[in-house]
Amino acid sequence: MKSNFFARIFIPKEKKFYDLFEQDTVNVCSIADDLIRLVNESDEDKRREIKNKMHDVEHANDQLTHTVMEELGRNFITPFDREDIHSLISSLDDVTDFIYVSAKSMLLYKIDPTHDITIQSLAELIRQATKELNQAVKGLRDFKGVKQSLQAVVQVNSIENQADDILYTGIEHLFEHEKDAIEIMKKRELYYQLETVTDKCEDVCDVIESILIKYA
Amino acid sequence: MKSNFFARIFIPKEKKFYDLFEQDTVNVCSIADDLIRLVNESDEDKRREIKNKMHDVEHANDQLTHTVMEELGRNFITPFDREDIHSLISSLDDVTDFIYVSAKSMLLYKIDPTHDITIQSLAELIRQATKELNQAVKGLRDFKGVKQSLQAVVQVNSIENQADDILYTGIEHLFEHEKDAIEIMKKRELYYQLETVTDKCEDVCDVIESILIKYA
Amino acid sequence: MKSNFFARIFIPKEKKFYDLFEQDTVNVCSIADDLIRLVNESDEDKRREIKNKMHDVEHANDQLTHTVMEELGRNFITPFDREDIHSLISSLDDVTDFIYVSAKSMLLYKIDPTHDITIQSLAELIRQATKELNQAVKGLRDFKGVKQSLQAVVQVNSIENQADDILYTGIEHLFEHEKDAIEIMKKRELYYQLETVTDKCEDVCDVIESILIKYA
Repeated sequence: MKSNFFARIFIPKEKKFYDLFEQDTVNVCSIADDLIRLVNESDEDKRREIKNKMHDVEHANDQLTHTVMEELGRNFITPFDREDIHSLISSLDDVTDFIYVSAKSMLLYKIDPTHDITIQSLAELIRQATKELNQAVKGLRDFKGVKQSLQAVVQVNSIENQADDILYTGIEHLFEHEKDAIEIMKKRELYYQLETVTDKCEDVCDVIESILIKYA
Repeated sequence: MKSNFFARIFIPKEKKFYDLFEQDTVNVCSIADDLIRLVNESDEDKRREIKNKMHDVEHANDQLTHTVMEELGRNFITPFDREDIHSLISSLDDVTDFIYVSAKSMLLYKIDPTHDITIQSLAELIRQATKELNQAVKGLRDFKGVKQSLQAVVQVNSIENQADDILYTGIEHLFEHEKDAIEIMKKRELYYQLETVTDKCEDVCDVIESILIKYA
Repeated sequence: MKSNFFARIFIPKEKKFYDLFEQDTVNVCSIADDLIRLVNESDEDKRREIKNKMHDVEHANDQLTHTVMEELGRNFITPFDREDIHSLISSLDDVTDFIYVSAKSMLLYKIDPTHDITIQSLAELIRQATKELNQAVKGLRDFKGVKQSLQAVVQVNSIENQADDILYTGIEHLFEHEKDAIEIMKKRELYYQLETVTDKCEDVCDVIESILIKYA
């Protein structure tokens, strides 16, 4: 009885945070799906449209981050340490930011992504990693899915390693086959930015891992 | 009476920390003002002199950071968590470091900043951001200026967004009009370093925000 | 008597962590020694062999990091905060990662390190910094070597400053004497990566410093 009593009082407020975290990872998955559409679009004007839509998602996610910060100030009860909530929501925001930054660079440097295997592969790994983030965050809810969270964390670490290998091979290929220094500069920056997205996904997982270490 | 009694005992020790934080932001504002003078100075020798003066400010701030660390070890009573003090003073030190790094690059690459609108605009945004940092840190004192701190945090976030747009436009212009790859490399690095200063100002604000979340 | 009783019960579990931290710094020193061999090897095939051996050390250290994380989950008693252990082991892992990344770039860009004074000097500073990390971590054991740890922290900060100066001079020399933009790009990246290793050593020291602030 007692545990039900507490559940009625405490969970509703905490639930809000879990809902917001999950909404955040839905946004992250959505902007990653846009990235996949972007790198498969051969028409530059349509790529610009997709990039603008990605900007809207990125902006909506900034708002969500702000809402979480406000809830942190308003609610006395939080599912875990306020600082951890701060780190989790900030690191998720970084993922969205870096996906958008990559899209911006693609348009800025007028790079056609449709025939570039490095860009294609990294975008696909980013899509996979964001799906794992969604699973990892879902598993946090009431600490009922600890195993699911840990599995997703392991997957993201593996994806980050793969992205690193693809970056390395891509850079090697670029320096061997492209002789125009300015072209190398542009593509190298984009490759690095895309790989950084998977680093940022790993940072989210580091926060999740440290939350699990403390509470689970 | 009781609160006066505690005030007499506790505030003097805490006051020292607030004084040191404020002195730190005064240094940050001072080196940002030097940067403004630097980017408006057309004579290279005089630019080198200004850069050397900036080195002195950067060095003085390292000493201040060290003093705060020593006070942390010596004082039992701190205005907020020792780790937060550590983060605040480290992130302020990063702002000073990156301003100095930008000045160093300008001299290293022999870039004339006086006719470069991107450099000029970023330096001006840095100056504004450091003034906001000073306000944000002043507001922390005894948590009496929470509103003032929060307003400054919002301003810094907005400045960082503007700096990001200016960086993007600057890079676009650079790749369109400059055909020498080595020149592109030099200016691009400087643009990025200047924009990074505003990122570092945002990092300070993240620390301040998380202190306010915990204590205010 | 009482303290002996507690020592018998508590220290064995904590000892495991200290052993793991020290093993980690032994790995870090080992991969730094490999880097010294790498930058003094004039035969490219032999450099590739050394790089592959470094990959094994980097991989072994990943395993060690994982073991520490598992021990964190299993053991109730830790020598200091779980989050600090997490930060310490992650930051040490970064040092190993960045040393390996530098070795990878050297091979990727087919850079002959044997006649490059910047590469040679940075590798030597890295070797010195890793030896200091080993001392700093040894000093943490039961907080019996606080002075030794603090001295090592000061040394690492000084080494990082020296590495910064060498980077600056190296980049200046590169832009003055190398006219091929692609060659500049390759070497500049390697120089930065090597200097970043010393930044990562400083990050380890920041964690150690903040542990000492809390417990010593």
